[in-house]
Amino acid sequence: MQIVRSVSAMQRLGRAWQRAGASVGFVPTMGCLHAGHLSLVRRARQLVARGGKVVVSVYVNPTQFAPTEDFSRYPRDLARDAQLCREAGVDVIFAPHDSQMYPRGKGADFSTFVAEESLSRGMEGKSRPTHFRGVTTVVAKLFNIVQPELAVFGAKDYQQAALIKRMVRDLNFPLKIVVVPIFREADGLALSSRNQYLAGDLRAQALVLWRALQKAQAAVHKTARPLPAARLKSELKRLIECAPAARLDYVEFFDPATLAPVPKVTRGTHMALAVFIGQTRLIDNARL
Amino acid sequence: MQIVRSVSAMQRLGRAWQRAGASVGFVPTMGCLHAGHLSLVRRARQLVARGGKVVVSVYVNPTQFAPTEDFSRYPRDLARDAQLCREAGVDVIFAPHDSQMYPRGKGADFSTFVAEESLSRGMEGKSRPTHFRGVTTVVAKLFNIVQPELAVFGAKDYQQAALIKRMVRDLNFPLKIVVVPIFREADGLALSSRNQYLAGDLRAQALVLWRALQKAQAAVHKTARPLPAARLKSELKRLIECAPAARLDYVEFFDPATLAPVPKVTRGTHMALAVFIGQTRLIDNARL
Repeated sequence: MQIVRSVSAMQRLGRAWQRAGASVGFVPTMGCLHAGHLSLVRRARQLVARGGKVVVSVYVNPTQFAPTEDFSRYPRDLARDAQLCREAGVDVIFAPHDSQMYPRGKGADFSTFVAEESLSRGMEGKSRPTHFRGVTTVVAKLFNIVQPELAVFGAKDYQQAALIKRMVRDLNFPLKIVVVPIFREADGLALSSRNQYLAGDLRAQALVLWRALQKAQAAVHKTARPLPAARLKSELKRLIECAPAARLDYVEFFDPATLAPVPKVTRGTHMALAVFIGQTRLIDNARL
Repeated sequence: MQIVRSVSAMQRLGRAWQRAGASVGFVPTMGCLHAGHLSLVRRARQLVARGGKVVVSVYVNPTQFAPTEDFSRYPRDLARDAQLCREAGVDVIFAPHDSQMYPRGKGADFSTFVAEESLSRGMEGKSRPTHFRGVTTVVAKLFNIVQPELAVFGAKDYQQAALIKRMVRDLNFPLKIVVVPIFREADGLALSSRNQYLAGDLRAQALVLWRALQKAQAAVHKTARPLPAARLKSELKRLIECAPAARLDYVEFFDPATLAPVPKVTRGTHMALAVFIGQTRLIDNARL
């Protein structure tokens, strides 16, 4: 396995693979890999044809963090990530430096952005106003650098995956997006690199996200009648804030295809939520 | 020569060429081709290796016109364009419909844009606030569809070419941008599809753009001292508005690399201007 640090070297490699007819599967990550990421890597490995290549990018992208967020303390451990990728049969880790990704120069600072302006408005886009512009921009860059045939994203970032699919359709990126289900611990907690922040009993309190999803699922499946979204939201807020360190950021019910909020919740409605557990902001989602 | 109308067919063709190792040169146009466009086609033909392919796109992109501009009356003549491309040795004309380029659907309208936020601020970007976002978006799409190794742009749209180069650098498009000098009529008028609008004596009045550029060049070359940009601007405005149908939109002096306006004009400064001749807005530029 090779670790590539230069944009131009990665781009040459991608181009050479393409010329050689090797299909390339790509898994973009911010590193600090966990079993959720490894399930994306396995899927990429399965999907590329024999002789295909799997690239994992490890890059904590500054432009998707707001100044108040956890960019500087976001966990980084490239040696461990490399070991996990080697074991998982990854061909290349692409781990560029910021100076490679966001060039600066006299009158020539980085100045081009990709923005999705519809699906990005609610939920994460509302709570983190500059986040998705950073995500779509860096993912567009990574697609152009790696030039994969398919890219694999996790369903935990449901809205992000929807945006990336929209970006690929709208800007005609010549690749396919594959979304892999959420990987959960045995007790239901969705895997996240940010779970590392959960010291002491915060780990146990973080289970309120999963409990809220289960409660909504049970409520929807108990009746054939649509449930008012507003009432369900208040009930879930109460449930969540029973955990002393938990503060609800949002809970939303929406059409899984358009992400448009729905006033009535039924089977097939999608639910997503963001909750602060102490200082740590966690997200989760499920189809009801 | 083949005329391709579907995005997916063009994308498959681009991918197949890439796999086959054929180098692809791309000339994006809005059609109504003239000798200026054909000089771009010739350059693309020269630059692609033997066995290489040349693609010309013919697409009047709605998102780069403001509602008040000439989108609907912009000249279109695909049959003539095809004849000219055939004679010039073009391999494929890509001429998509709007419904292919900007899909609509229940909660799924086109919603992703590429915007350059520094070089696009002055001149054309100031006079036509939504123009460049439309340009960078459609050019990003065309690059992803055609997947060329190089793309050729004309120097008449100097600011546009600078923006496209910046977009390619910032978003890491795996291709090279080539800029070809302005093609002028014998009397100095820069070729433009919009010259067709110049009825009667407006064609003669349109020469004020070239005269203004020549006057600035002469002024700069007459002295080693830097000239105040503000004074030169007023002189050129007077010269231009001697033509009764001419109205100056802007004239700007700037650093050719950063497009930053300069207060003092010297050799090497770049000048650009936009002038209405009757209802027709023309642009031109030159290095002084």
